[in-house]
Amino acid sequence: MKLSEGVEWGLHILLTLAWLGDQEPVPAAKLAASHDLPAAYLNKHLQALSRAGLLTSQPGPRGGFTLARPPEQISLLDVAEAIDGSQGAFRCSEIRRRGMGESLPARCFEGPCAINAVMQSADAAWREVLARHSIADIRGTVDEHAPEAAGVARRLFDRDPGSASRSRSR
Amino acid sequence: MKLSEGVEWGLHILLTLAWLGDQEPVPAAKLAASHDLPAAYLNKHLQALSRAGLLTSQPGPRGGFTLARPPEQISLLDVAEAIDGSQGAFRCSEIRRRGMGESLPARCFEGPCAINAVMQSADAAWREVLARHSIADIRGTVDEHAPEAAGVARRLFDRDPGSASRSRSR
Repeated sequence: MKLSEGVEWGLHILLTLAWLGDQEPVPAAKLAASHDLPAAYLNKHLQALSRAGLLTSQPGPRGGFTLARPPEQISLLDVAEAIDGSQGAFRCSEIRRRGMGESLPARCFEGPCAINAVMQSADAAWREVLARHSIADIRGTVDEHAPEAAGVARRLFDRDPGSASRSRSR
Repeated sequence: MKLSEGVEWGLHILLTLAWLGDQEPVPAAKLAASHDLPAAYLNKHLQALSRAGLLTSQPGPRGGFTLARPPEQISLLDVAEAIDGSQGAFRCSEIRRRGMGESLPARCFEGPCAINAVMQSADAAWREVLARHSIADIRGTVDEHAPEAAGVARRLFDRDPGSASRSRSR
């Protein structure tokens, strides 16, 4: 069971955009350079984040990406599902109906498979934790432990480093 | 994010052995036939379940597999980890240290990455649900909704169908 590396990349890119806290588009190449990521691969994930409505993509020579909504309204689950899809870790293939299951009356299969039911509960618990945490929450934790990070991000993208804290009221 | 199909196969095979409720070895080929699974692929997973101490493998012409411990003591997490390993869905590659992270003092990286911390919490919630449910729990649910299943399994493996309920006291 493994999430794609694009989920990690996407989360860090959204955090970086949250630090900028404005609607000035950032080119994909600059976003890639900010975390030393391969631009072509990252671009595929940026497109997925746009399709999911988490980023706004602006075309043209001065185009780029901005957050499509406030970081308080982007959960870690939104990002994971935008990149990796919303299917759970367990895919029931109804094995219970095969082999010896063919001897059982149809009534036995009216409810969900008991194995699948527990697996779906586990997936729901996983999603619940990710749904409960937003990009703004992550920004808050990082600002606490690495107070310099927001300023470094803002300088890198030619924003006024001093106004980093004001960006939170966005 | 996806668990391998071997997890589903392994769970159904362990449930079947739980219905038999004895220590008479079942050949891999018969286990595969019981759910119409490809024997060669299933065998790989049976070996993994044996290595993890969930099955006991007995060699020889009358050999096969038995449960290595009572189904009450085999959790769904045990099975998932035996087949797919115990690594969580999210693998942090410390992206925070790359690119703009290189400008930050080492102190900023003393704690875990805030993104990784939430991801690990989500994985822990997933594991907690699977650890809380045993093969015996699954057997109990299926016996309730498909009371014929235990008897079908026992007949298929030449056990006395009438003693299916007694197998629970194992």
